Amino acid sequence: MLENAKEQNFISPEEYALAEADFQKKTAVLQQEIKKKKLPVILLFEGLSASGKGNRIASVIANLDPRFYEVYSIAERDTLEKRMPMLWRYFIKTPAKGQIAIFDRSWYRDLLYTDTGKKLTKKEYKNRLESIRTMERQLSEDGCLILKFFLLISKKEQKNRLRQLEKKKSTRWRVTPEDKKQNEKYKSYLSAADTMLKNSDFPYAPWHIIKSDDGMSANAAVYRIVTEKIEENLNPTRLPSAKVQGAYKHFTLLKPPLLKDVPLDKTMRSDVYQKMLAHYQKKLLKLHNKIYLNKKPVILAFEGWDAAGKGGNIKRVASALDPRGFAVNPIASPTEEELMHHYLWRFWKLLPKDGHIAIFDRTWYGRVLVERIENLCSEEEWKRAYNEINEFEYELHKWGALILKFWLQIDKEEQLRRFQERVNVPSKRWKITDEDWRNREKWPQYEEAVNEMTSRTSTSFAPWHIIQGNNKRYGRIQTLSIITDYLEKHLS
Amino acid sequence: MLENAKEQNFISPEEYALAEADFQKKTAVLQQEIKKKKLPVILLFEGLSASGKGNRIASVIANLDPRFYEVYSIAERDTLEKRMPMLWRYFIKTPAKGQIAIFDRSWYRDLLYTDTGKKLTKKEYKNRLESIRTMERQLSEDGCLILKFFLLISKKEQKNRLRQLEKKKSTRWRVTPEDKKQNEKYKSYLSAADTMLKNSDFPYAPWHIIKSDDGMSANAAVYRIVTEKIEENLNPTRLPSAKVQGAYKHFTLLKPPLLKDVPLDKTMRSDVYQKMLAHYQKKLLKLHNKIYLNKKPVILAFEGWDAAGKGGNIKRVASALDPRGFAVNPIASPTEEELMHHYLWRFWKLLPKDGHIAIFDRTWYGRVLVERIENLCSEEEWKRAYNEINEFEYELHKWGALILKFWLQIDKEEQLRRFQERVNVPSKRWKITDEDWRNREKWPQYEEAVNEMTSRTSTSFAPWHIIQGNNKRYGRIQTLSIITDYLEKHLS
Repeated sequence: MLENAKEQNFISPEEYALAEADFQKKTAVLQQEIKKKKLPVILLFEGLSASGKGNRIASVIANLDPRFYEVYSIAERDTLEKRMPMLWRYFIKTPAKGQIAIFDRSWYRDLLYTDTGKKLTKKEYKNRLESIRTMERQLSEDGCLILKFFLLISKKEQKNRLRQLEKKKSTRWRVTPEDKKQNEKYKSYLSAADTMLKNSDFPYAPWHIIKSDDGMSANAAVYRIVTEKIEENLNPTRLPSAKVQGAYKHFTLLKPPLLKDVPLDKTMRSDVYQKMLAHYQKKLLKLHNKIYLNKKPVILAFEGWDAAGKGGNIKRVASALDPRGFAVNPIASPTEEELMHHYLWRFWKLLPKDGHIAIFDRTWYGRVLVERIENLCSEEEWKRAYNEINEFEYELHKWGALILKFWLQIDKEEQLRRFQERVNVPSKRWKITDEDWRNREKWPQYEEAVNEMTSRTSTSFAPWHIIQGNNKRYGRIQTLSIITDYLEKHLS
Repeated sequence: MLENAKEQNFISPEEYALAEADFQKKTAVLQQEIKKKKLPVILLFEGLSASGKGNRIASVIANLDPRFYEVYSIAERDTLEKRMPMLWRYFIKTPAKGQIAIFDRSWYRDLLYTDTGKKLTKKEYKNRLESIRTMERQLSEDGCLILKFFLLISKKEQKNRLRQLEKKKSTRWRVTPEDKKQNEKYKSYLSAADTMLKNSDFPYAPWHIIKSDDGMSANAAVYRIVTEKIEENLNPTRLPSAKVQGAYKHFTLLKPPLLKDVPLDKTMRSDVYQKMLAHYQKKLLKLHNKIYLNKKPVILAFEGWDAAGKGGNIKRVASALDPRGFAVNPIASPTEEELMHHYLWRFWKLLPKDGHIAIFDRTWYGRVLVERIENLCSEEEWKRAYNEINEFEYELHKWGALILKFWLQIDKEEQLRRFQERVNVPSKRWKITDEDWRNREKWPQYEEAVNEMTSRTSTSFAPWHIIQGNNKRYGRIQTLSIITDYLEKHLS
């Protein structure tokens, strides 16, 4: 790609002044439009050392209202970032609708450098590239405009700039040994960058190569692309989905049973329950220890009918664990801020550190359950979500996470019994709301949605487990035994 | 304090089962009440090694609904935390109103250990203690219930527990050399803890010493205190302020001019302005470099009349800076989540890393300006805020931050002129809202509030600067020259 980069017209200071004035005038209007139309925008700058990433960004933001943008400098990972999935620090920084996120370096760093300074293996490279493609596609389908700039300078100009920086005491520290190496091995570095560009020039997020030997013409080129692309995306002529054909990963799916085929007649005597509970909780605590030592992240996701016993099940799991090593995340309706982001954003933010357990009381599957049934998202959105969720969980799996998903099943009569108990017992009354009764009326729609959910998102790395919940004791022991078995198998 | 710790009754397993059942029943009701009355609660556990902090916390949360609490384990600082003020990682974790934050270890860690493992100097100790006292008092005055538990075990029992842990391969790693040292030097360690407890046994956040050789009676004691204190605080008989007499730090205040005495007649020729702008911006970029190298955090706070030119001033500052090293934080009305916390919480979250600059477009002074005048907080709250803000800025100063605060002054005629221009020029129309006109009607109230603000919060470490803003050019150069002079003076 680099050898075919378009020549930019060298422009005079007078022409540049005009380009700047034009950009200023246009952005004054465009940032209002971005806000109004709720367009999220990512501007991403990569490039050779000393190619002027900082200068390009400074020129762009000098013309923007600070309420509309955020600048992120992507450096080496810090201790927390190292304990999280590769995409984590990026996804949580993606812009809200109507906002611009500007990245000085980005996730493409991860294609050029390992975290340890060693060369990436082919497999690592492929893996990371896949993660990046997935993220950019997901954001793009959600309506995000992603503008990727690669700044190119000649070997001679790079050498010249590095020399200038080194001359002055105040800027000498900016020149790293890596920068110098890059200039010495300019050709091989450029070829690595070229491969990266070719591999990641996605139709929904293409690269823009900016020749940057001359700062003014480089700025002018960036100005032009930014305004053009934003204008285009404020009035899109194509559906976003049209942009991303063929970009989906195929997942092999397991075949969980339909809800109607799940037996619910099992019971368990109290004394048996107490014994088994003690047994599994002891086992689980030991495994928690191992999770910590092996630095494994663990994700336990609970979904189920209202009053199916999610709270009780979670309590039996949680009370076995060391409180320092887990968190329970109760998922309520999204806040305003959360609604302004990709719907997976708030779940990325709740991921555990490695060695820790995150328990979700309701999950990202809300998208294909309540949001589907209550029309809180479009049909296109919830249909797309099955694949997005598989991809999300696959990212967690690649990171090393152990993922267990539970659907707590009860039948309609048992639910009614529990609802009535909640109404009748004062200390349980707060647990029952009008919404629960309304949801109950939609039992058939929910059943269909659950069956579709489990059949479309049961993967080998994140399978669904249907818990037989009519008998609370039986269901809790079933949950605990599935968790302990799974962890034992995967922690050896 | 430790030698006077009350004896706890040793309780039988049967009695313990009753205590547990009682706690479970009470918390089921209390957590609903906490929510309803919007009481924020902090439960903090400190104690000797192997004293059972984890077990106490596990027993408490086993009885809580996960929607109501969060557990935080306070370990050594990670790379980001080391670059932030001492209180930062704690203040951002303080609970929302109606929530319980449980700390396994806490800010008291910082009184027992330095970040480098060396012994704290007397001055460091005093400084940290003062920070802690301030934070606990601020939270307490804001209505937060702070329950501090110190778990005490005997030397013999500690030795026994450490030995048990070491016996098993699966738990051996939990015993650190520090733990063993603590057992060997039990007495001197206990005396250090005792001093800490005495120094931080504040009337608004007293310590509860829990003898923990026997786990069951220790749990029962915690249960009792938690329920009692929550019940007490749900129906407080005293005003929170009554609890904190004498706990305020005295600040020496500078004497900034009254607004009416600020001259506004200066002007500046365009060519002079251009030359000076280039001069100061160049200087500022060099200083930014120094800030980065010296790892100094810098905070620039902008307040001013509507249309006084905050945006334009900030732009002239920001466009001189390296975009990798600063962020502009535009402050709008607080979100729901922000309203559920102490009003300074959202500003703690926006602090820069060391070596970075945070520019605030409107600030925490909203409390004593718009919130005062629009009755968005009580009179007691905004009156208390002057001191709270001084304390907040003092914390930043102790951390090493350079703080500059600007009030952009214009007169009423100039404001009218600018409002009218905004109405008449289409590209500027979005900048003017009905609210601006309403605020204008309250000019005298605002003038009084601003004068009170500058006179009560101008400290040597965070002085106010009143910018003569009637002439935009003059005001911008004045701002830039104040910033560059101040930075030059403090970075040498």
